[in-house]
Amino acid sequence: MTEPLPPGSVIGILGGGQLGRMLALAAARLGLVCHIYDPAPSPPAAQVAAACTTAAWNDAEALAAFAKAVDVVTYEFENVPAAALDAIEAVRPIRPNRKALATSQDRLTEKTFLASLGLATAPFAPISNDSEMTAAVAQIGVPAILKTRRLGYDGKGQARLTTPTDGAEAWASMAGAEAILEGYVEFSAEISVIGARGLDGAVACFDPGRNVHQDGILQRTTVPASVPATVVTDAVLLTAKILNSLDYVGVIGVELFVTPAGLVVNEFAPRVHNSGHWTQTGCTICQFEQHVRAVAGWPLGDGQRHSNVEMENLIGFDVCRVPALAAEGAALHLYGKAEARAGRKMGHVNRITGPA
Amino acid sequence: MTEPLPPGSVIGILGGGQLGRMLALAAARLGLVCHIYDPAPSPPAAQVAAACTTAAWNDAEALAAFAKAVDVVTYEFENVPAAALDAIEAVRPIRPNRKALATSQDRLTEKTFLASLGLATAPFAPISNDSEMTAAVAQIGVPAILKTRRLGYDGKGQARLTTPTDGAEAWASMAGAEAILEGYVEFSAEISVIGARGLDGAVACFDPGRNVHQDGILQRTTVPASVPATVVTDAVLLTAKILNSLDYVGVIGVELFVTPAGLVVNEFAPRVHNSGHWTQTGCTICQFEQHVRAVAGWPLGDGQRHSNVEMENLIGFDVCRVPALAAEGAALHLYGKAEARAGRKMGHVNRITGPA
Repeated sequence: MTEPLPPGSVIGILGGGQLGRMLALAAARLGLVCHIYDPAPSPPAAQVAAACTTAAWNDAEALAAFAKAVDVVTYEFENVPAAALDAIEAVRPIRPNRKALATSQDRLTEKTFLASLGLATAPFAPISNDSEMTAAVAQIGVPAILKTRRLGYDGKGQARLTTPTDGAEAWASMAGAEAILEGYVEFSAEISVIGARGLDGAVACFDPGRNVHQDGILQRTTVPASVPATVVTDAVLLTAKILNSLDYVGVIGVELFVTPAGLVVNEFAPRVHNSGHWTQTGCTICQFEQHVRAVAGWPLGDGQRHSNVEMENLIGFDVCRVPALAAEGAALHLYGKAEARAGRKMGHVNRITGPA
Repeated sequence: MTEPLPPGSVIGILGGGQLGRMLALAAARLGLVCHIYDPAPSPPAAQVAAACTTAAWNDAEALAAFAKAVDVVTYEFENVPAAALDAIEAVRPIRPNRKALATSQDRLTEKTFLASLGLATAPFAPISNDSEMTAAVAQIGVPAILKTRRLGYDGKGQARLTTPTDGAEAWASMAGAEAILEGYVEFSAEISVIGARGLDGAVACFDPGRNVHQDGILQRTTVPASVPATVVTDAVLLTAKILNSLDYVGVIGVELFVTPAGLVVNEFAPRVHNSGHWTQTGCTICQFEQHVRAVAGWPLGDGQRHSNVEMENLIGFDVCRVPALAAEGAALHLYGKAEARAGRKMGHVNRITGPA
């Protein structure tokens, strides 16, 4: 399929969390229908989607039925098992494609890929046993951070090394999971670019945002990022390079460190990204609609920013602030999660801070 | 209930057309759940709501079950039968209230109400027989327009009189339905104010938009309306007067004629309004969210406009322009209607024309 999907077509979304929910809301604006697939019952996205399949990632029958019921499949998170994707891909296209997904699913593959494009990354080394750990610490030095190659997000599956002797304990904490040791990058700011690439190869990037994390979880994104114009240009160009070399279709989130020696790529996520939520309030066409447009084969919007925005995540019991935030008149987004837990993303707030 | 409904509460919406759909999308952003009631199967709003009851307006059992399943009830159109509202109101609050609805359901009651507030309307006279028709034409003159008192919208149930002798035929075309003859108002512009009043009595109005109709259907709304500042002030103040005197909760659409002698009120709709769709792109908080906030007892947003916007309705086969409009990068809104028909509202486009 290379023609744009007509209104009324069905987008299948793997994962029904808040990203799937906001994708479904954006798709609805374009007259497109969403079908969610999630192993958990009543996921947040199901409240706003026309259909929801509740089935496990290894339920081949459910996966095949889901694929047949939709016109194209996308995903809201990058850890969908490969076998599930195989079953779906036999029936319908998956966008972004498998290469993008496979590259981002493994931190070692991802860093190797980025390095192959000539992009700077933190120094890194693969770790699968004690002796590699010892050698890597000697080579990369401390401080450093040991991360599982797969299935890590929001700071989970990570151990910090502050002295060389921390290596053994850090490796033990991985419980045998293949890991990667990353050297520490001295940076003045963390920024991210939300980029998009259409089925026609067109690329559009939103303005970079400046991110502040706490305990490994994004807390705040501010746009503009208040970095020199050359940094903005570099960030956008490297994002386009990643998109083009993966023959990517959809939205990508690229996390970057601003350093005196230039931009260092931390990682990318082959999906809409928490640090792009500001676009809902700052742009005519937000990251969610941009992703839906790309996945449905529609032309991209231009992603122009009309306002400066500060996005704040509402994590865990931050939801207790909802009454006060509602009174503030900022744009409040709540994800329909019944239960607040420490570290759980419950919603976010977008505040316009001035015209762009 | 005077406390704000907490996230997870259920808003019942009578009517599942495009207005119900966009209300449901706005409610979802706030973590609120929607339940649609509509006699037609698979209405546009059902695709994005958690629940939909398909039942007739006279199905007392279904109405009662619907009311019990939700926390508060609102409506997307003003012609819900009174008996249905009685059944619902016995169980749950209806917002905006019955007085607002009853006033707007009958053009004669509406005009009498507006006149009682000291607001200017077109000259009008009730018509229920031939002799009243003759007398009214003599009093009001021509050109004039004969409208059914109830159930008219988008120019339906109307007959235009250009000469006094048109009266008999116009009255005959009403097929015995009670009517109202309205004198012609010479105006320089049609504008509308989308106002909102919260459960706490707070009032917030969006900037007036300038409307262009074709064949009785709204075609385009432009904001700002390019009228003098005094006209904007008058428009907002009279809207607040209407809201307060009806003890109104929710969003109202007030249509006004700009004349050399001041503003003349054409009519108001006790609901979100087609001429307020521009707020989706021009404001942090749109009319749909504002309505949901009011109905749920939440504080209103401030309705501040960050951008100038032109809203264009896509009517009937205007949907054939969707591929071109998508390429333009404007904010496109499609209503999920499977079939295009002449005069049917299929979607709209919001174009930012500059900063506010």
